[in-house]
Amino acid sequence: MKRLILVFLVAGLLLATAARTHAQVDDPLPSWNDGQAKKRITGFVKTVTTENSPDFVPEAGRIAVFDNDGTLWPEQPMYFQLAFALDRVKALAPEHPEWKSTQPFKAALEGDLKTLFAGGEHALLELVMATHAGNTTEEFSQIVQDWLATAKHPETGRLFTAMVYQPMLELLAYLRANGFKTYIVSGGGIEFMRPWTEDIYGIPPEQVIGSSIKTEFEIRDGTPVLVRLPEINFIDDKAGKPVGINQHIGRRPIAAFGNSDGDLQMLQWTCLKRENSFCVYVHHTDAEREWAYDRDSHIGKLDKGLDEARSNGWTVVDMKQDWKQVYPQTSQ
Amino acid sequence: MKRLILVFLVAGLLLATAARTHAQVDDPLPSWNDGQAKKRITGFVKTVTTENSPDFVPEAGRIAVFDNDGTLWPEQPMYFQLAFALDRVKALAPEHPEWKSTQPFKAALEGDLKTLFAGGEHALLELVMATHAGNTTEEFSQIVQDWLATAKHPETGRLFTAMVYQPMLELLAYLRANGFKTYIVSGGGIEFMRPWTEDIYGIPPEQVIGSSIKTEFEIRDGTPVLVRLPEINFIDDKAGKPVGINQHIGRRPIAAFGNSDGDLQMLQWTCLKRENSFCVYVHHTDAEREWAYDRDSHIGKLDKGLDEARSNGWTVVDMKQDWKQVYPQTSQ
Repeated sequence: MKRLILVFLVAGLLLATAARTHAQVDDPLPSWNDGQAKKRITGFVKTVTTENSPDFVPEAGRIAVFDNDGTLWPEQPMYFQLAFALDRVKALAPEHPEWKSTQPFKAALEGDLKTLFAGGEHALLELVMATHAGNTTEEFSQIVQDWLATAKHPETGRLFTAMVYQPMLELLAYLRANGFKTYIVSGGGIEFMRPWTEDIYGIPPEQVIGSSIKTEFEIRDGTPVLVRLPEINFIDDKAGKPVGINQHIGRRPIAAFGNSDGDLQMLQWTCLKRENSFCVYVHHTDAEREWAYDRDSHIGKLDKGLDEARSNGWTVVDMKQDWKQVYPQTSQ
Repeated sequence: MKRLILVFLVAGLLLATAARTHAQVDDPLPSWNDGQAKKRITGFVKTVTTENSPDFVPEAGRIAVFDNDGTLWPEQPMYFQLAFALDRVKALAPEHPEWKSTQPFKAALEGDLKTLFAGGEHALLELVMATHAGNTTEEFSQIVQDWLATAKHPETGRLFTAMVYQPMLELLAYLRANGFKTYIVSGGGIEFMRPWTEDIYGIPPEQVIGSSIKTEFEIRDGTPVLVRLPEINFIDDKAGKPVGINQHIGRRPIAAFGNSDGDLQMLQWTCLKRENSFCVYVHHTDAEREWAYDRDSHIGKLDKGLDEARSNGWTVVDMKQDWKQVYPQTSQ
């Protein structure tokens, strides 16, 4: 019996392998123009997945980390999570008549981004605490999902989830098809991302790392809940990114993708003094199809990172040159 | 070509399935005596893995969480991590002559557990900070591995890693074979467990959740490191367990295994008011082969949890009755 199974399975697998070899001629990254960036990506994947090569990395070690804002979807003219917070302020305003005359809520209600940003980090934090806390984790997840189902980007008119970068979706799928585990490591809220990353990126909640507020366990009328508190738990940005990666994954990635100086430490942690590692900066160079910004940008500033990318030989993706298409084709 | 592949593969798979059905008659839990506990475990797994059944749970939702100390390996006469800390105090003592006359170090050096425990949580925390911090994450991982390679349990004379519970190893493997993702959720140190859980339990570092101290990113002579600071980051115990689970996994488990009141909130979070969930307390009833303790124990007290298990219909594993064998057969 065993021998019979083996004969059939081996025959089937041999044929399947032959078919796959043929299929591999198909381009796994069709939205990427042929160029240095694409060549380096496929070259790296081939290097670490070729068995019996000295550079082979077993599947368990194939960890790839991705920043989200500006790397997997845009961050202009403001972080999408801030658009969410502003809409939440409007939704909650009837319960807070005092917001009409109190900053930063007044600016938020009036859509006065200039005043809002002038309030600095403190103003934004106050907004987040007022709009992201006070509910349970399950309630918050539902609020995010409801918002994403209808909210549109102020400039493109697209659903936010229809603005993910098509070339990066292909890259995520390509890495996973090659045995990589793909993670998000974002300065954005972990609970803001988890409700939709599995559907949109194919990244399950347990592979999402982000900033968080504290939560508290409670049993309400016999039902256990986690209540979201207005208190920072962890900021997953800059030097916090390697800390968050270590806390959640417990081993170093071999590939890291970012777009700003906020990702620099993550790329250093992944690539400095390490063989068989691969670091990429997505450079926003396409003012027509997306936005063009780097060294002087208020959001997603890429300055020191660009210098380090050059001196360390990291890959810089030029959105204008390297991407055939920016967003997925959609009826949205 | 495609049709030919299909014919061969289907034939092979049909034969393989027939063989597997036969193999399933083999017991996946050979160290478990036939009884209520075993019957409930296999019944639950069958329920959630039977497709087209109303109780079916897709693989992505099959999350099982396990406490470590007292659930996967023993915790008597002291937490194994405390034995590690005491050995570290001895190893570091030459650099700290003052420890000879300062508590809790004096007690640690003299093996005076009574005085040590009398110092309460504060004394233990001081020991942990002095012995677990001040190095990099990679250095600490190596220290743990070196210790585990030679340190022996004071009563059994076995290596600590040779004292994991054989029935629980089988249970972990059985769940994984049925599409479950198995996690550790322990009050113990996350970085103390990660260096060995993959080898011993088949649980990779990214599926280990535990208590932690803060770390800080730094570039030392061009090499990026994470330095371990003498400051608590998170205590993954009691009401902290659901918080830790949410932080790391982002979805609720459907199965939880613990042995003490410290696991109660984790079991509540998993099982209270939820269909298709399964909660288990391992009850230490075997004074001969292991240790017998529950309501009055200094370590691993199981009091309120035992009452809740009974009133909620959770499964209680009686180590003496339910386990044929406690530790793996080994030459250690």
